[in-house]
Amino acid sequence: MKRSVTILGATGSVGGSTLDLIEREPDRFEVIALTANSDVEKLAAAAIRTGARHAVVADESCLPALRDRLAGTGIPCAGGAEAVCDAARMGADWTMAAIVGLAGLGSAMAAIERGGTVVLANKEPLVSAGDLVTAAARRHGATLLPADSEHNAIFQCFDFERPERVRRIILTASGGPFRDWDLEAMRGVTPSQACAHPNWSMGAKISVDSATMMNKGLELIEAARLFPVANDALEILVHRQSVIHSMVEYVDGSVLAQMGPSDMRVPIAHTLAWPDRMATPMPPLDFVAMARLDFEAPDAVRFPALRLAREALEAGGARPAILNAANEVAVAAFLAGRLNFLEIAAISADTLDRYDPVAPESLEAVWAIDAEARRIAGERVKDGVA
Amino acid sequence: MKRSVTILGATGSVGGSTLDLIEREPDRFEVIALTANSDVEKLAAAAIRTGARHAVVADESCLPALRDRLAGTGIPCAGGAEAVCDAARMGADWTMAAIVGLAGLGSAMAAIERGGTVVLANKEPLVSAGDLVTAAARRHGATLLPADSEHNAIFQCFDFERPERVRRIILTASGGPFRDWDLEAMRGVTPSQACAHPNWSMGAKISVDSATMMNKGLELIEAARLFPVANDALEILVHRQSVIHSMVEYVDGSVLAQMGPSDMRVPIAHTLAWPDRMATPMPPLDFVAMARLDFEAPDAVRFPALRLAREALEAGGARPAILNAANEVAVAAFLAGRLNFLEIAAISADTLDRYDPVAPESLEAVWAIDAEARRIAGERVKDGVA
Repeated sequence: MKRSVTILGATGSVGGSTLDLIEREPDRFEVIALTANSDVEKLAAAAIRTGARHAVVADESCLPALRDRLAGTGIPCAGGAEAVCDAARMGADWTMAAIVGLAGLGSAMAAIERGGTVVLANKEPLVSAGDLVTAAARRHGATLLPADSEHNAIFQCFDFERPERVRRIILTASGGPFRDWDLEAMRGVTPSQACAHPNWSMGAKISVDSATMMNKGLELIEAARLFPVANDALEILVHRQSVIHSMVEYVDGSVLAQMGPSDMRVPIAHTLAWPDRMATPMPPLDFVAMARLDFEAPDAVRFPALRLAREALEAGGARPAILNAANEVAVAAFLAGRLNFLEIAAISADTLDRYDPVAPESLEAVWAIDAEARRIAGERVKDGVA
Repeated sequence: MKRSVTILGATGSVGGSTLDLIEREPDRFEVIALTANSDVEKLAAAAIRTGARHAVVADESCLPALRDRLAGTGIPCAGGAEAVCDAARMGADWTMAAIVGLAGLGSAMAAIERGGTVVLANKEPLVSAGDLVTAAARRHGATLLPADSEHNAIFQCFDFERPERVRRIILTASGGPFRDWDLEAMRGVTPSQACAHPNWSMGAKISVDSATMMNKGLELIEAARLFPVANDALEILVHRQSVIHSMVEYVDGSVLAQMGPSDMRVPIAHTLAWPDRMATPMPPLDFVAMARLDFEAPDAVRFPALRLAREALEAGGARPAILNAANEVAVAAFLAGRLNFLEIAAISADTLDRYDPVAPESLEAVWAIDAEARRIAGERVKDGVA
């Protein structure tokens, strides 16, 4: 029997990798719905190639173009944010939630409420609305699978039947392009330097997050939501080659690690076939050619994002959502040349100091906290950080 | 409910590690039988400490001493090889088969024929009688668990429900003390140099096997018996730190690895608690202190044992038993100063060339092949290798 799949955010990088895998095994998957924000050309082409049963564009103004492009194919289409949520509710066995940012939270939640398997490819649902998302998954019997390489690695090594036997989760971090730089040099980092990630080719925002290590800090919070361990059982280890994607240590001293090539198709394929496996086109890891793997401790002084994330994790409630929102504003300001590199974390810290609402109990509350944190962070950028 | 355990070979190194773990969790285990070859003092002490229900000494001449030592404790005792097999048949949930060499084959098989979980701590049952042992386990519904660190690592990473999704098993090897020596220098290696293993503290025989890499060659054969993959899916990788104990690669590109401290209690604890876990007293791995892990290709020229083992694996039948027997004779001759280091493999190769019986179909046939291979190898040592 084919596994039915829906991709929310089918025209982005994760969506493209997911389609690539699905199209390699047409006998194994059938596509229920594909959604995109506005890239009608790419969406329609993918819908036609995969024989999707629905195509949805979030930007309603693009719907006429989508309708034109799909004319005569028999593929029904729709437009608007609510139509994206409707697509998520069509009951696929497997849903990839790959819409960037908090914009994807509503549709991810709609898929979770239908049960089935929901793959989370972005941080925001778990960082900013983690308690709501995991509670909904429990309530509706949905299985959450992580698509990013670190959490997927942990998932592959974690014994969910005996979480009490896990001693530590070790989240590996490349350390980003500035892991060997001193603090003074880091102050002068330019956006283009920050976007040159050593191991992965990624968008600007996530590249900067990797350079500040905020990416790893947010992953720490995600890991705490996905895996039932105490917060202090979560550690970060700098491993510059990014071959070991993360590790789980058990009480007997065994450490299980997942390694793989730096290609998102590996973790995505894991979620797509889980609990089975499917082939990916990557060549096998060549350990002789890689020759060595290195480890070092993360430096909380040069990378204050790690401390901010740890504090937000410990405090819980609205803190992770505020950190995520403020960081996004600060990174955008850095990319626009309005902040220096070290001020990115300072804006987040400052926003957290100034804003401390109660824990959100609805998606609406999450969105409101996000908006207010962005407003405060934006003002701090304008005023200039102390 | 307590897990009932029997240790065949309770006074050796593996037996001692097993007792150490069992005695740390007395509420979790109860001891059915302990056996030893001749160390009556150690056997009786362990039987008294653990409240064992039976104590058996293989060397019948030691039985009176054992009886004296256990007088008044109410622990029944027995002596002789058949009594060891009787102990193996007492139906423990979990049996550690840790008797060194082919001498342990009969009692391991007796335990397997009772079903339950049988942990194999020595190479000979799987190398020399692999087909018979695995067939018996299937027939009697016994679960075979490997106690040595490499196979235990593979076991922890292997998906037995989907062996067809495994692409490679990567068996790691420290490379031994001579991994960086040239061939000429290796000719002059002394027994004491060969016994100084970089990562593990072991007996003389296995230290020499590690130095020639025959140990790894025999492990390759064991792996082929334990894990349902094609022979050419088994690879050896030199990893000098011995932190990664072995790895399994899946078709999606994921490589799962098990790491741990170089202490046999880690894999033994894994088998003892399996599928649960139990604590061991080792400190957690310190990745920052270890700083790096290295990999290199094994050198089949300097380590001809790897080629001999691969050929014996491919040919199957009696070949692995002959290789194992000839190697044991050659190592003993090397330790006695009668062969140089490179002649160890030459004796094995020569014995394999001269002796090619049909595949053994009974334990008696295995013992006969073993004896004849030893006789031939012994003659070759006496005559001097070409």
